Amino acid sequence: MISKYVPILNWGRRYSKSQFGRDFTAAVIVTIMLIPQSLAYALLAGLPPEVGLYASILPLIGYAIFGSSTSLAVGPVAVVSLMTAAAVGRVAAEGTADYASAAIVLALISGGMLTLMGLFRLGFVANFLSHPVISGFITASGLIIATSQLGGLLGIASSGHAMPDLLSSIWANLGSVNFYTLAVGLTSLVVLGWVRLDMKKRLTGWGVSAGLATFLVRAAPVAVVLGAIAASATFNLGSKGVALVGQVPPGIPLLSVPSVSLDLLAALIGPAFIISIVGFVESISVAQTLAAKKRERIDPDQELVGLGAANIFAGLGSGYPVTGGFARSVVNHDAGAATPAAGIFTAIGIGVATLLLTPFLALLPKATLAATIVVAVLTLVDFSILRKTFAYSKADFTAVATTLFVTLILGVEMGISLGVAASILIFLYRTSKPHTAVVGRVPGTEHFRNILRHDVETRPDIISLRVDESLYFANARFLEDLVYDQVAAHPEIRHVILMCPAVNAIDMSALESLEAINERLKDLGITLHLTEIKGPVMDRLKRSDFLEHLTGRVFLSQHQAIDILSTMRSGNRPGTSPSTSS
Amino acid sequence: MISKYVPILNWGRRYSKSQFGRDFTAAVIVTIMLIPQSLAYALLAGLPPEVGLYASILPLIGYAIFGSSTSLAVGPVAVVSLMTAAAVGRVAAEGTADYASAAIVLALISGGMLTLMGLFRLGFVANFLSHPVISGFITASGLIIATSQLGGLLGIASSGHAMPDLLSSIWANLGSVNFYTLAVGLTSLVVLGWVRLDMKKRLTGWGVSAGLATFLVRAAPVAVVLGAIAASATFNLGSKGVALVGQVPPGIPLLSVPSVSLDLLAALIGPAFIISIVGFVESISVAQTLAAKKRERIDPDQELVGLGAANIFAGLGSGYPVTGGFARSVVNHDAGAATPAAGIFTAIGIGVATLLLTPFLALLPKATLAATIVVAVLTLVDFSILRKTFAYSKADFTAVATTLFVTLILGVEMGISLGVAASILIFLYRTSKPHTAVVGRVPGTEHFRNILRHDVETRPDIISLRVDESLYFANARFLEDLVYDQVAAHPEIRHVILMCPAVNAIDMSALESLEAINERLKDLGITLHLTEIKGPVMDRLKRSDFLEHLTGRVFLSQHQAIDILSTMRSGNRPGTSPSTSS
Repeated sequence: MISKYVPILNWGRRYSKSQFGRDFTAAVIVTIMLIPQSLAYALLAGLPPEVGLYASILPLIGYAIFGSSTSLAVGPVAVVSLMTAAAVGRVAAEGTADYASAAIVLALISGGMLTLMGLFRLGFVANFLSHPVISGFITASGLIIATSQLGGLLGIASSGHAMPDLLSSIWANLGSVNFYTLAVGLTSLVVLGWVRLDMKKRLTGWGVSAGLATFLVRAAPVAVVLGAIAASATFNLGSKGVALVGQVPPGIPLLSVPSVSLDLLAALIGPAFIISIVGFVESISVAQTLAAKKRERIDPDQELVGLGAANIFAGLGSGYPVTGGFARSVVNHDAGAATPAAGIFTAIGIGVATLLLTPFLALLPKATLAATIVVAVLTLVDFSILRKTFAYSKADFTAVATTLFVTLILGVEMGISLGVAASILIFLYRTSKPHTAVVGRVPGTEHFRNILRHDVETRPDIISLRVDESLYFANARFLEDLVYDQVAAHPEIRHVILMCPAVNAIDMSALESLEAINERLKDLGITLHLTEIKGPVMDRLKRSDFLEHLTGRVFLSQHQAIDILSTMRSGNRPGTSPSTSS
Repeated sequence: MISKYVPILNWGRRYSKSQFGRDFTAAVIVTIMLIPQSLAYALLAGLPPEVGLYASILPLIGYAIFGSSTSLAVGPVAVVSLMTAAAVGRVAAEGTADYASAAIVLALISGGMLTLMGLFRLGFVANFLSHPVISGFITASGLIIATSQLGGLLGIASSGHAMPDLLSSIWANLGSVNFYTLAVGLTSLVVLGWVRLDMKKRLTGWGVSAGLATFLVRAAPVAVVLGAIAASATFNLGSKGVALVGQVPPGIPLLSVPSVSLDLLAALIGPAFIISIVGFVESISVAQTLAAKKRERIDPDQELVGLGAANIFAGLGSGYPVTGGFARSVVNHDAGAATPAAGIFTAIGIGVATLLLTPFLALLPKATLAATIVVAVLTLVDFSILRKTFAYSKADFTAVATTLFVTLILGVEMGISLGVAASILIFLYRTSKPHTAVVGRVPGTEHFRNILRHDVETRPDIISLRVDESLYFANARFLEDLVYDQVAAHPEIRHVILMCPAVNAIDMSALESLEAINERLKDLGITLHLTEIKGPVMDRLKRSDFLEHLTGRVFLSQHQAIDILSTMRSGNRPGTSPSTSS
């Protein structure tokens, strides 16, 4: 059924007038919000500001056709813009035609990857980006982005996509600060900061209705942009050394695909994958959060297709990689967007704005866009994850700290890659040295507990070991060592019981270790028993010949095992005792 | 205490005459066995045969000083020789002085790595090489090695360290087979094959004592080498186009270190790591198996130091990477070796043999050495692991098959690397989609079981979910989906119980998912409860504020939870019910 993959065929057929009204209202507000952000994020990506507008037109239509969220607003976002700058900056020099076309190719590759991942239902790949890694990454990205805009605010050149390069280039050029630029930048920053932090409260204090106040707060950044253009024209700021956006080609380029070399593809495929995953994780989190508020469910694999279409459309429309943005989606949702059609109306709005705005953009000081970025990204910076994970788990803290510091120092791609690698290695390391306990019976009950935590009964000839982890290759040797150490320390042991209520799987390596343990214990005249094996694990064991060779028995419960083994004649040898009749 | 790291200081002080007798006997037998193997494996590594002898002298002394196994015999082995050829072949052309010195550098780097891993107690790294991956790798290596010797047996040139290159080079040169070489090769192959398969039975059938027969079988390969030298001299095989070993420099080069460039180090460091891990895993398995027979324990970290010393000594003595070999260690053990001193005596034996043998080696046909290798490695080839894993677990089968075929087609380094990557990814994938069950009470008991497998009691307003896996980043989203799907499907639910007896850990990502679930359910008027949380998991949860926000309670047992929740007044709202007093 094709409409499964093209959601617009479902909701489009039932589209109503009331939905139109809600979608249109939401689109107006999102359009106003997106204009300054789109211009600014394109600058962050190292691209001409109008590219940000292009990336806010076709992609929204692509997502509206294939996406499944009724609230998500896609377009250029801060983190993906920084990642684009880092990736494209390695294959072309900023400001060249090659740079712009590499960004387009990056969007196309990323779109293709996302679509394929969706069709092959590979959305689970995103699960390996853990919350702490994402938090560390976003905070570090926010710091890098804010720092990267210092140059724009001060009117000096700065370069680099990680802290060492950025700081040293800013330091080196600190002598050439342009004070007109600084004035424009600081003014924009103060006004935008006030808009974000204080304007709404002040307006409602003056008796403005909450709804109107919210709208005015959202429209204010556009006013700042227009004010900056006006100031630039009035005071002829360009002639005073203030960097302006400059001439922008009129119109909207549509359906252009640059020629692509294999070398360029090879250089961009790795970054495109990382951008795709990060963009998807950012987007799906927003989509799911907003869907929950509407009691809707999001299909992650369909979201991949939706984002993939958005990025392919971004590439076709001379844009650069896009994803679902948090702030704009919340605004879209709050403004009442009912269907993805809101995105189509927003695209039309941005298209109209692009045609109207481009003649004036030439005069816009870049410092105002830098201020827009700084105000937007400072909300990304949140060090509380360091404190939270430090209190909760040193393993998670290590993953956050690794991601955060590597991102700051070596850049976004190394940061996220090493962060993911660290979190996986930590998980593997932890499961390779699982928690284990020697257990005994809580007197008068059928319960068995750790002898170190509880006052329990044990017998000298029986040792009961509980391993609190699935048995697999990384801890198979650990298991052998555990059993052999216990047996070596207690020569009076005649029965070893492995209690397995927390063993969720036994892989081939662990099975071979169990076989080795069974054989070794047999040589020592000790029988091996298993208790409380889970259904699926038992099903699997039955497919091997392990149970036939097991010297002891498999008991349903630990209690039953101790009852039966305790009543056996002491000194019974394996092979003659009832315990061998498994 | 230095003797902890230098075991010879322990056993050396108590060395007795009877130990000397046993060690000396074992050394004589191992020496005889090692001579042809050392020559042949050096050829396999692309090195002059005498390098194999050099690698069987100093390394044995290094291991005897620092190693902890009383049975292990180190030296050149088949798989490591193949890996050396693959690694060194990328930085230098076979037969050049650079090739030989790169092999020495490889041994030195590997020795340094192993020693450092031992000192930092990093032996657990080897645990990530699962049994199936090792099995697949060894089988593929055996096939590659046997194929690589076809050229030597046929008297034609062949090149490559993986099947496609090898087969195509053999195919291309098949026209230039030298029939004298083929005759020598086939004769050696048939004799050595008979020695391995049939000779002992035949000898004992003729009334030879079992002990003498065993000794003769072990000495026979040396006799084959001497016979081939004699035949070569008698029939002047060299003039008939049979490839001979050729002039060998007299004496034993000791303590030579080649000059090393940073480029060479960089090129060899990756392969050296893989060789170190594979060699360590091969060696420790042998050492542990033999130690078990003597009721001894092996310290893996000390074994790393011992193998590290052996490889550093190999480098200093103009050798190439070595490790503990299976066949020779078993022979050493069976012959009664009592202490690592047996290795020192073997080293002396090989040293003497080197001095005596080198004058004659010039005449030895390489085809005889090729036959020695083929007979030795065919025991490595074992496809039964494919059948065993296929029956037991498709995941393990995938790991074996990946390792086997990638090794055959792309070579040893890619094979082992992708094999390890595959087994880790499979493990992560499996734990990211854990087994879960909706559970109900087995009537008349306190036990709760899967409603799909057992006839159990449930209540419409309570759903009990058991997740059979630790909760961590890769399955955190899965957990959220699981709960939301159940709640969406059963609108009458008022209580969700997560039953956690198999949850061995909850990481930060999973904790945040639990917080999200708790909040979402709260919005829906549903309370969340946890039961049967393990001690260490509970300890950790108490370090967060999750339990303060939990809408429901934490119950010690599932039984208690159902008892208490069932007696609550139906329609109780969260916040007023006793269940909130956690």
